[in-house]
Amino acid sequence: MNSPEIKITLAEDEQFMRQAINEARLALDKQEIPIGAVVVCGGRVIGRGHNLSETLGDATAHAEMQALTAAASSLGGKYLPECTLYVTVEPCVMCAGASAWCQIGRIVWGADDPKRGSTRFTPSLFHPRTQIVRGVLATECEAMMTEFFKKLRR
Amino acid sequence: MNSPEIKITLAEDEQFMRQAINEARLALDKQEIPIGAVVVCGGRVIGRGHNLSETLGDATAHAEMQALTAAASSLGGKYLPECTLYVTVEPCVMCAGASAWCQIGRIVWGADDPKRGSTRFTPSLFHPRTQIVRGVLATECEAMMTEFFKKLRR
Repeated sequence: MNSPEIKITLAEDEQFMRQAINEARLALDKQEIPIGAVVVCGGRVIGRGHNLSETLGDATAHAEMQALTAAASSLGGKYLPECTLYVTVEPCVMCAGASAWCQIGRIVWGADDPKRGSTRFTPSLFHPRTQIVRGVLATECEAMMTEFFKKLRR
Repeated sequence: MNSPEIKITLAEDEQFMRQAINEARLALDKQEIPIGAVVVCGGRVIGRGHNLSETLGDATAHAEMQALTAAASSLGGKYLPECTLYVTVEPCVMCAGASAWCQIGRIVWGADDPKRGSTRFTPSLFHPRTQIVRGVLATECEAMMTEFFKKLRR
């Protein structure tokens, strides 16, 4: 079975990435590392999340985990081949693995994460049918992270 | 910083693996893939979990995720360097990533999972300070899985 083709323009990708950035700002308001995510299906946001690791005292409470779980709950099924996950930063190993279990159709992220990101592993951690788009509003996504860590070190 | 050394005998490892197997049986009772996990700290189980992917309609509801989150909640902190995760089957990519974020001290698993397991990736998905022990009660752990999939195919 091939994945359904998800047709979307760059303007639409940017529009949904802005919603992920809004989620990242909610994390920032709670002194959390500013990462946000939304899951979109048929042009509609069906799951949202932002990093809550400190708030919940749970190192696994990443934006993507919450957005994926919310999306599956919204659709009433555990697979998301017709959905796109938008996330402000390249997913980590855990979140890449989660996206693979969900068979997510597409992942769009903003800033790359050379240190913690999931693209440096062989073989790929992503589902073979997941389309990957990187660098959407990357400057804005990365600036939030840089600013956060600069303040933390002061 | 080095990880604290966790001193434990094979008999103790088997004792805790039996508790993980008990968790796997709870999954089996719910027609779930029979995988169970416990997290142990100072000789005490502080987190438990079994696979609930079908029950919750959530592909991320793995035994290890629940056991790690419960353990962090029990200790009131997100890092688990003095804890051991016992799991009946080799952790997947997602769960290996979660264990790395938690900085788990040790992981002990039963059956290897050559297809979905996390040891086939380069570089390693585990935290560099996590000690790995594999093959504890492997025959029993694997038999549960084999039996489950045999019945499924009938």
